[in-house]
Amino acid sequence: MVDADSTEKFKKYMNAEKNRINDALEEYFQFVLNDVKDNEMIKIVRELRNYTMNGGKRVRPILIATAYRMFGGKGDEIYKAAISIELSQSFFLIHDDIMDRSDLRRGFKSFHRKVEEMLGDIKDKEHMAESLAIVAGDLAVDYSFDALNRSDFPLDIKYRAMGELIEIIKTTGYGEGLDMFSSAGVKLKMNDLIRLHLRKTAKYTLEGPLLLGSYLAGKSENLNALKAYGNLVGLAFQLHDDVIGLFGTQEEIGKPPKSDVNEGKQTLLMIKAIEKSHENDRNFINGCLNSGDISDEDFERLKNIVKQTTSFDYSRWLIDRFIEAGKRYADRIDGNQEQKDFLKWFADYLVSRKY
Amino acid sequence: MVDADSTEKFKKYMNAEKNRINDALEEYFQFVLNDVKDNEMIKIVRELRNYTMNGGKRVRPILIATAYRMFGGKGDEIYKAAISIELSQSFFLIHDDIMDRSDLRRGFKSFHRKVEEMLGDIKDKEHMAESLAIVAGDLAVDYSFDALNRSDFPLDIKYRAMGELIEIIKTTGYGEGLDMFSSAGVKLKMNDLIRLHLRKTAKYTLEGPLLLGSYLAGKSENLNALKAYGNLVGLAFQLHDDVIGLFGTQEEIGKPPKSDVNEGKQTLLMIKAIEKSHENDRNFINGCLNSGDISDEDFERLKNIVKQTTSFDYSRWLIDRFIEAGKRYADRIDGNQEQKDFLKWFADYLVSRKY
Repeated sequence: MVDADSTEKFKKYMNAEKNRINDALEEYFQFVLNDVKDNEMIKIVRELRNYTMNGGKRVRPILIATAYRMFGGKGDEIYKAAISIELSQSFFLIHDDIMDRSDLRRGFKSFHRKVEEMLGDIKDKEHMAESLAIVAGDLAVDYSFDALNRSDFPLDIKYRAMGELIEIIKTTGYGEGLDMFSSAGVKLKMNDLIRLHLRKTAKYTLEGPLLLGSYLAGKSENLNALKAYGNLVGLAFQLHDDVIGLFGTQEEIGKPPKSDVNEGKQTLLMIKAIEKSHENDRNFINGCLNSGDISDEDFERLKNIVKQTTSFDYSRWLIDRFIEAGKRYADRIDGNQEQKDFLKWFADYLVSRKY
Repeated sequence: MVDADSTEKFKKYMNAEKNRINDALEEYFQFVLNDVKDNEMIKIVRELRNYTMNGGKRVRPILIATAYRMFGGKGDEIYKAAISIELSQSFFLIHDDIMDRSDLRRGFKSFHRKVEEMLGDIKDKEHMAESLAIVAGDLAVDYSFDALNRSDFPLDIKYRAMGELIEIIKTTGYGEGLDMFSSAGVKLKMNDLIRLHLRKTAKYTLEGPLLLGSYLAGKSENLNALKAYGNLVGLAFQLHDDVIGLFGTQEEIGKPPKSDVNEGKQTLLMIKAIEKSHENDRNFINGCLNSGDISDEDFERLKNIVKQTTSFDYSRWLIDRFIEAGKRYADRIDGNQEQKDFLKWFADYLVSRKY
């Protein structure tokens, strides 16, 4: 599906965009650091900078910049606005890792663990580190709005983009909360799960950034095909991520392979496997999700059940359907061909991690 | 200093403003609740509404509305913008109580304790409640930006106000962090403490809201007297709050009288008492701040030391000086007399709680 020439071209494009985004992030953090007057807080904001700079592939700001160009946007100011989504990302990940009690993120220490290491020998260190991480996350979301607010776009355009950033963060917050309830054992039905994915992944990673970029280009109507692309590819990305989370290696996942199960995460893989199982296996799966610390043996048995019930194949089939439909919508977007081609390639790319 | 006639007039004014602000808050939460689709999250957002509606005297949005009118602003749209600061307030208080492990706020249960009560019999309930409280706080700050962004003001004015709200939240975040370090035992010098108070109280409670209201009225220059008023009265308010925190009753403080000491809070009262003490008492004070659970007897001894070292009188003297200076600056503000008179009365009112 993905030919080597396009892949080379678009990876090069992503890399170039990533560098511009990292430059804009560095510049923003430099500005912020000049403004902090307290030695202790300078350390925290520096950690936040390092954490943010270490952050992955920058797909969200790349989508912002891509949508912007697709609808005729020009110039480099877009990167100053696009980093807002990476600053929000730091906000979400930092708080998320506290909530999930994760020690790792992207293969590095999670933010609160990093702060814990930074703090000397003080009493109640773990709680203190988590508290400072809450504050750092709170600062990051404020920086996110700040970066967008400072970017130089016509006010009516910036106003609409601000509304979209607010919407993205709100929607993702609802998704986070729902996710917590789900981890705590509130049983999700299929439509709850889809809504969760639409909120927490599709809006946040695909649709929201694409709309933000569109608005910044002054395009605010006739965006239904773009929205459909975002939602479909976003759903596929989440389902693929869940498959990786169960069948991938630690390197692919960025945290221990059992994490999803130990967090009690209700994925389509689990819900479908439960639906297709007899009582014995059903109880076993629920037991695994409640265990908090699954054994190697049970983990293998769980994966086998997911395969035998065809739940695994069902997820893969859905991923393919969503990606194909998303690409068809990409063709219908009322924008420049170059970026539409990228979006089509990007849909495949997003689900190309192996497991 | 405060004559009875003015007090009656201005308390009536504050009450009328408070009602308008509460109406605007109710309206905003109604709008938000219509938008949440998940039963579980509806419960959380309802709790957030109740928590926010229970919130005190609304001094910050009243200051926004007052500054707005002082510089010629008309009409009711200001209340829709002014609630943004109360939504931020919920954000800060909710996260603050998690960080401070407080069970109480404003005499009611703190937000995470309220959520804990709401959650049924689930595993790991305390952590789950705290996690949902983190998410609720995150939503509240997003709502804060949302309320301001939706209010109907000319775009250039709204843009400047948005910048100020971002600044308020940023500054308060730095103050929160510094406060954490201070509670963890990083020793504050007098100037660190003043900076902390300027960040965490003066900007957040006085100067920021006053500037926000001014900007919304279209006034963005010649604001130095207003800023000086905000900083001086803000400092006085914080010092007074610290005095109440040590010498007030549970009813006045809204949480147990020993809380500040048990949290290891370094106040001017403590720093000055340490400075004026001999080694024995100095060690005793530091021991109290590190104890985490001070005995009744030690608490009484601590209060006596604070009085004997004249630290108590010093704080009271500073409070008076700051209030008087603040009032002189209020006279110099380039705005309507009616609101200037209110600000002068308000300075005294802010430090009128008895101890």
